[in-house]
Amino acid sequence: MTAIDDMLATNQKYAAGFTKASLPMPPGKKLAIVTCMDARINTHSAFGLEEGDAHVIRNAGGRIPDAVRSLVISQELLGTEEVAIIHHVDCGMLTFTDESLRKQLREKGMDADSIAFAPFDDLDESVRTDLRHYQQCPLVRHDIPVRGFVFDVKSGRLNEVK
Amino acid sequence: MTAIDDMLATNQKYAAGFTKASLPMPPGKKLAIVTCMDARINTHSAFGLEEGDAHVIRNAGGRIPDAVRSLVISQELLGTEEVAIIHHVDCGMLTFTDESLRKQLREKGMDADSIAFAPFDDLDESVRTDLRHYQQCPLVRHDIPVRGFVFDVKSGRLNEVK
Repeated sequence: MTAIDDMLATNQKYAAGFTKASLPMPPGKKLAIVTCMDARINTHSAFGLEEGDAHVIRNAGGRIPDAVRSLVISQELLGTEEVAIIHHVDCGMLTFTDESLRKQLREKGMDADSIAFAPFDDLDESVRTDLRHYQQCPLVRHDIPVRGFVFDVKSGRLNEVK
Repeated sequence: MTAIDDMLATNQKYAAGFTKASLPMPPGKKLAIVTCMDARINTHSAFGLEEGDAHVIRNAGGRIPDAVRSLVISQELLGTEEVAIIHHVDCGMLTFTDESLRKQLREKGMDADSIAFAPFDDLDESVRTDLRHYQQCPLVRHDIPVRGFVFDVKSGRLNEVK
C-alpha cells in the first residue's frame, strides 16, 4: 500500500464522521498563516485551527515571495485581516545553499541555475527578512497586524520574533 | 484579542502536552501533498496525517507552478517519493478571473498586471492541468506516483481525478 492509498483509506473514516458541511468560504478567524511545508508542523493542532478558521499557505521555509499571489487572493477576495509568518527550528532550509543544491541537480543532468531556492542560515533573521519582504510588497495590506514567529519542533512552542 | 493572540494561547496548551520532540526532518511517509490554502481543509484530520508524516505545500488553488521550488527541495533533499495534488469543491479560484482581480486592485491604485493569479473554471480540469504541469517540469521526479484529487468540502471526501 502506498502512502497515497493509506491517505485515501484514512479519509474515508474522516468523511464518514464529517459534520462541517456548511462552512463559508471566507476564513472565520480572518487569519492567513504562512509557514513551512515541514512534516513536523501539524498546523491545526499546533496553531489551534479548526476547519473554516484560517488560510494556511505552506512552502519550503515559509517564504513570502512564493506566497504573494495567495496572500493577495486571501486579502482581496476572502477578507483576511491578519498575517502570521512562521518559520521553525531544525528547518531543512538551514542545511544547504543555492549552489550546493544546483550542483546536486546538475550532477543528475538537471539545470536549476535560474531557481532561487531561498535557503537561510539564521532563523530569526529569515523571519525578519520575510517580514521586510511583506512590508515592501505593494500588493498586500499594510493596515493590518503582520507578525513573525519561530515554531520549535522540539517543544511544540511558538516564539515571536521581534 | 486578535486571531494571532488566540493562536498563541492555544499553542501554549499544545506545547504543554507535546510528545513529539525527536522526530526526524525527512517525512516518515515519504509523501508530499500540494493543496489549496482554503480554511475548510484540515490537512491533518482529512488526510490522516500525524506530525512527521508528510510535506504539506499549500497555496491559492493548490497550483503546481508555485510549488516547484518546494517539491525540488522535498524530493532532492528530504527523500519524498509520492505526490498528491488536491484541489477542492467550492474553491475561491472558481470565483474570479485574472482580469477581474487586476481591475479590483487597479481601483485601489495597485498594479497587478504582471501577476498570473491562476484561477480556473473547471475543477477536474484544473487538477489535470496541474498533473500535466508536473509531468512537464524537468526538475521533479517522474519515476514516482503522482496522483490528482478533488476534496469535497461539503462531504469531507477525497475523489481521485483520472
